[in-house]
Amino acid sequence: MKITMAHGSGGESTSRLIEQVFSKHFHNEYLSKLEDSAVLPGAGRIAFTTDSFVVTPVLFPGGDIGRLSVCGTVNDLLMSGAKPMYITCGCILEEGLDIDILDKVIASMAKTAEEAGVKVVTGDTKVIENKGGEPGLIINTSGVGFIPEDLVTPGPSKLEDGDVIIVSGNLGDHHAAILGTRMGIETSIVSDNAPLNEMVSNLYKEGVRVHAMRDVTRGGLGTVLNEFGAASGCEIELVESDIPVSNAVKDFCGILGLDPIYMGNEGKMVLSVPKDDADKALLAIRSSKYGENAAIIGSVKKKENNADNTNVSVLTDIGGKRVVGLMYGEGLPRIC
Amino acid sequence: MKITMAHGSGGESTSRLIEQVFSKHFHNEYLSKLEDSAVLPGAGRIAFTTDSFVVTPVLFPGGDIGRLSVCGTVNDLLMSGAKPMYITCGCILEEGLDIDILDKVIASMAKTAEEAGVKVVTGDTKVIENKGGEPGLIINTSGVGFIPEDLVTPGPSKLEDGDVIIVSGNLGDHHAAILGTRMGIETSIVSDNAPLNEMVSNLYKEGVRVHAMRDVTRGGLGTVLNEFGAASGCEIELVESDIPVSNAVKDFCGILGLDPIYMGNEGKMVLSVPKDDADKALLAIRSSKYGENAAIIGSVKKKENNADNTNVSVLTDIGGKRVVGLMYGEGLPRIC
Repeated sequence: MKITMAHGSGGESTSRLIEQVFSKHFHNEYLSKLEDSAVLPGAGRIAFTTDSFVVTPVLFPGGDIGRLSVCGTVNDLLMSGAKPMYITCGCILEEGLDIDILDKVIASMAKTAEEAGVKVVTGDTKVIENKGGEPGLIINTSGVGFIPEDLVTPGPSKLEDGDVIIVSGNLGDHHAAILGTRMGIETSIVSDNAPLNEMVSNLYKEGVRVHAMRDVTRGGLGTVLNEFGAASGCEIELVESDIPVSNAVKDFCGILGLDPIYMGNEGKMVLSVPKDDADKALLAIRSSKYGENAAIIGSVKKKENNADNTNVSVLTDIGGKRVVGLMYGEGLPRIC
Repeated sequence: MKITMAHGSGGESTSRLIEQVFSKHFHNEYLSKLEDSAVLPGAGRIAFTTDSFVVTPVLFPGGDIGRLSVCGTVNDLLMSGAKPMYITCGCILEEGLDIDILDKVIASMAKTAEEAGVKVVTGDTKVIENKGGEPGLIINTSGVGFIPEDLVTPGPSKLEDGDVIIVSGNLGDHHAAILGTRMGIETSIVSDNAPLNEMVSNLYKEGVRVHAMRDVTRGGLGTVLNEFGAASGCEIELVESDIPVSNAVKDFCGILGLDPIYMGNEGKMVLSVPKDDADKALLAIRSSKYGENAAIIGSVKKKENNADNTNVSVLTDIGGKRVVGLMYGEGLPRIC
């Protein structure tokens, strides 16, 4: 069966689609079925985020747009120090989409939400014409998390002189998986799309003082660390050989001339912690799901001169030092 | 200047677009600029909703997709009894979109948010290829509202025998404005897109016991009241001549064979209140912005037999009684 414009009418066809696909997978005590809003227990401080996912293809090696849409929003909430609680599912379907694909995607969202410990509590579905090519779908997920009362929230302005920079695993897998699929290149690379709830929870459980953390998505490590540097007045010095990249991705990058520092990921985070907490942090991450390849990749020092525009530099394998600027231009379109 | 794929990269072009358009209009103390999540004061009970807006054209008589995207989400929160607090702005832009149009839309969102008393606290921007026609944009807004501690939340299952049904104003304006524009028909009809915060606040201030309320959007009054009837085991009997419709919309419907009961609106609500509260409710709505044409349009009675499938009927002007079923089929595509 295919999606028709009638499925977006708000009438009987919409109700049946919601029943057949969405309600089937997203059953929980808070799900708003008849109402447009879910009514939920709250908290003293909340985190609120939104993300739209336009990745093509919607099914890719190691994941799909449904899993991605949950991981992206859950990880954004986690990075603010919040415990992710509730997410929404806003679908924009292209006419002609196969309902079996939608079902697969929504099932994957539900499974990922369970892994991440969040509930899908409300949603919305619209249908638009397909102007050409395979009919696709776009998903927006917004999320609400609770921030523990006594938590000093991390932030990019909170980097301190002497901090170390840790990345939670290999870079570039999602980017390479999507690009490889589009180009029809056979590789063993699969997307890293994953929720980081266990990892962040372990960091806080071990008492690591997290100054800043961020999931490394489109724009890559280079973009995130430039924001950290600019916001904090610090310079971050990376060691190229310490940045974890799988051999398969290294080969892929070699052939296509890509730099893992600017490649998008969907299950990796970078954090800045005091040097004294570095070993504890590394252990906490490595003992978490999706964290086995975590590594210390650089250090932070206060800029002596605020007019200094270099936020990030990297010591290369051959002993040189180069500046890591902001990514300029397109990156890979529709990677997330 | 036009939107390019680079504006969706997550790199420097994205940052500049956010600075030039979004941050310019959405300045408030909670807006997350560097972070993906906004950190916000919370409440004991919250309402959470999401809605994507795909209306074409994006600028239409009486409004635009920006105003619509705020009204839709604010009104959904209001209908749960919540005070709308925070909303998100998730933009999906088609490559080639004129940045002046984006600027106009975002300025309109900001203005409408101010009118509705909500803050836009976080956002996300993606760019997709334009596969044909004028480049468009899609906006997802999600919203969080606070529910007063002692409020018994209204709901479609809470209709009671003897309730009266009130609609807050003329039906069909948004639908007719969009359809007229697409067909190139010159009319005086403008969209009713409006936030209903003042109206709902006045209803509660006057102590009206609201059993159920719902904004009347795609699917129209017929769809909402069928949900009310089915959820509560009540039959709703409308009086056709009491349903407020402007002369211009009546004429428009006459020519095109449309029924205002199934036409979409973006600034109208319908509610069910005890008969004793009807006059108070009508007065509260009529004295509110956007409520001057409010009317009592029907009454509620408990179904004697739960197997009775008629949820809504209407007494016609010529003395007959007909069943108002669910809308079946397409309605008007991309009306919201």
